[in-house]
Amino acid sequence: MAHYKLAFLGFGNVGRALAQLLIRKKTELKEKHDITFSVTGIATGSHGSLVNQNGIDLFGALELMRASQSLSLLTSELVEDSFDFIQKCKADVLFENTSANYETGQPALDHIKNALELGMHVCTANKGPIVHAYQELKDLADANGVGFLHESTVMDGAPIFSLFREAIPASNLLSFKGILNSTTNLILSRLEGGDSFDEAVKHCQDIGIAETDPSGDVDGWDAAIKVAALVTVLMGIPLKPQEVEREGVRNITPEMVANALKEGKRYKLICSAERDGDKIISAKVAPELIPSTSPIYSVEGTSSIVEFKTDVLGDLSVVEKDPGPHTTAYGLLADFINAVK
Amino acid sequence: MAHYKLAFLGFGNVGRALAQLLIRKKTELKEKHDITFSVTGIATGSHGSLVNQNGIDLFGALELMRASQSLSLLTSELVEDSFDFIQKCKADVLFENTSANYETGQPALDHIKNALELGMHVCTANKGPIVHAYQELKDLADANGVGFLHESTVMDGAPIFSLFREAIPASNLLSFKGILNSTTNLILSRLEGGDSFDEAVKHCQDIGIAETDPSGDVDGWDAAIKVAALVTVLMGIPLKPQEVEREGVRNITPEMVANALKEGKRYKLICSAERDGDKIISAKVAPELIPSTSPIYSVEGTSSIVEFKTDVLGDLSVVEKDPGPHTTAYGLLADFINAVK
Repeated sequence: MAHYKLAFLGFGNVGRALAQLLIRKKTELKEKHDITFSVTGIATGSHGSLVNQNGIDLFGALELMRASQSLSLLTSELVEDSFDFIQKCKADVLFENTSANYETGQPALDHIKNALELGMHVCTANKGPIVHAYQELKDLADANGVGFLHESTVMDGAPIFSLFREAIPASNLLSFKGILNSTTNLILSRLEGGDSFDEAVKHCQDIGIAETDPSGDVDGWDAAIKVAALVTVLMGIPLKPQEVEREGVRNITPEMVANALKEGKRYKLICSAERDGDKIISAKVAPELIPSTSPIYSVEGTSSIVEFKTDVLGDLSVVEKDPGPHTTAYGLLADFINAVK
Repeated sequence: MAHYKLAFLGFGNVGRALAQLLIRKKTELKEKHDITFSVTGIATGSHGSLVNQNGIDLFGALELMRASQSLSLLTSELVEDSFDFIQKCKADVLFENTSANYETGQPALDHIKNALELGMHVCTANKGPIVHAYQELKDLADANGVGFLHESTVMDGAPIFSLFREAIPASNLLSFKGILNSTTNLILSRLEGGDSFDEAVKHCQDIGIAETDPSGDVDGWDAAIKVAALVTVLMGIPLKPQEVEREGVRNITPEMVANALKEGKRYKLICSAERDGDKIISAKVAPELIPSTSPIYSVEGTSSIVEFKTDVLGDLSVVEKDPGPHTTAYGLLADFINAVK
């Protein structure tokens, strides 16, 4: 039986869903995976931070968050800032889930470096550090004999990175194509249902999946970041989001969508990339008309899909329906198990 | 660098595709996976058997097979039967790919037991042993500290078993639904294209994917065996193919298929199972009308799909296009790498 000390840096929807999942899976982890754990640190954005080597009551912390109260109500050591937190939590595994800054990858990038240097495994759902410093972070993790895993950065908790790392070894990814941004896919589904573009965007904001400024989604930035992450990690070729050819969904009208449907086709915001040896010959995000003979056609609402061409199998697709904070949380749990096994 | 001695028991289309893949991936296995190998045994059905501790020339063996000549033309030790072969090949990894007998799982079942007892990893594409003795073989492998892997028994080389074993740890499979038999799926696609049932069956025989007696496919036996294999391994509940409720595609007429298409639906031979705790509440193979809103709708010809419901993610589907002996061979290569890592 191996015991691990866990710390949460960032405790928003995803962090809290992970805490709940860890509570639910505690017995199973012990009985089937010989893993026990305690939580020695929780750092929040606006409800204080908490470090306790004797183990934090995860139920209690979730209750305080639910009541919008400060975690400092639980007995704890004083924490100055996020780096002081990383130092003091003395965790074996850090879940890095602070707010993302895609321009720089900061402060998550420095958090992750710091934790890896201290010999912690790091699991993150944060795409910023992947597109800004993947190879550096991976090398740092290797040098420190720990894992740096990030399953939830693309397609939430659906297995994408672990698929190539574990399930299809000695395969080389030649190209991929898919739907990787939930908000725009839901907008396109709403347009098919009769919404205007503005109504569709407002619906996404109402259910909490689009920001007040929806440009990160509708202009294809989030999708471009995911293309860059897949190319960087799975093809081993560093690529910046700015290098991804990018067109969003602003020019798709309800009329275009209705006419396409009449012909048995659907507009989808397609993410794709193709390599030739060590060179990327195409990396783009753009609306495409998809026929019903493609598995991409049926992917509606917030669901997503990616179709991989490799040198060993026919096209292999992974489809994820109905993602949410709980599936992102599961990707982090899977990372934890894979990092320590 | 670790060196492994490999042996092929059965050297038909799949075995030979694996030999070609091993030749193609030799450098990559060495450079990226620290694996080198030599082949110390090849046993064929009608072209003799060959054992050589100094390593067999794989190119030469493939050439002899291509020319329908006996492998005994290559210098070798005398081999009496398959059990003598297993004994004498002294391999670290045995690829068991003899002809399958689904009634009993033999002789593959005894071959596998024998090899596991001798401390060999065993990789097989043979479904018989899985549905007849999975737990016994798994326990025997564990007791001997070796791997018993069988990725290619369902959906060829697409990652299904490794998905649950490696990529989505601590997940529990609640139910699944999909298309797992290529021949019937191609028959249904051909009916949509205007073929009669007999024409469709004949086409499948002509391209070599259906037997002279097509009942194993068209009456749903192959699909039922795959349902039993998934339930047995992924749900941990032993299930025999005879316990799977089974209806084939013989009652589907070109008229039914045409009418369905007019309504935007397609007939598919659906494999499914559902559990409630440790009990299977449904396991069946039957034709179903599938709407275009399902990813199953677009799966045509010999392609296949399976949709998994787990306790941790939304529906997760895996789709494999255009399988063949080369993809089955890849599943065996992946098993080899996963067994020894």
